[in-house]
Amino acid sequence: MFRHVVLLSIDPTAGPGAVERIVAALRDLPARIPEVRGYVVGPDAGLADDNASVAIVADFDDESGYLAYRDHPAHQDVIAEFIRPVLVGRAAVQHHVE
Amino acid sequence: MFRHVVLLSIDPTAGPGAVERIVAALRDLPARIPEVRGYVVGPDAGLADDNASVAIVADFDDESGYLAYRDHPAHQDVIAEFIRPVLVGRAAVQHHVE
Repeated sequence: MFRHVVLLSIDPTAGPGAVERIVAALRDLPARIPEVRGYVVGPDAGLADDNASVAIVADFDDESGYLAYRDHPAHQDVIAEFIRPVLVGRAAVQHHVE
Repeated sequence: MFRHVVLLSIDPTAGPGAVERIVAALRDLPARIPEVRGYVVGPDAGLADDNASVAIVADFDDESGYLAYRDHPAHQDVIAEFIRPVLVGRAAVQHHVE
């Protein structure tokens, strides 16, 4: 299995609706991108002041499945419409899972 | 379920052994912290130049399980001995999973 983990930091002045819209838009993606095997998205629970805003853990059979997701037009549309306009930080890792 | 997702960025001048030691030390934690329900740690595969170095996805029954992990001496020892000396960036989110 190949895992993609990403944390998004959303501009706090964008309002709580911005995070809700991103989470909802991302959760639509597994139905539209057949390479996705597992997909868990969640908004931060607020336990730590310096946390990011949204976590995404996406699983694929292999690296090529991840690349298909990364470059899929439905994913790119979510990034362009919902994420990029309010994004202030992003961290990511892709790794193999035994 | 309650999920903790963290991405660590390790000083590249610390050498590849630093990431390997962190991954190995973290993978020992589930055997020592009974509240851990799921725990997947991986070093970045190197697909993107601006990625972080290590991903940790840890699952617990609830928020109190996460707090027990966060504050557990075995976890704090790994942070103090292996992570903090070489850490240059960190992003985290905790979220509920339905």
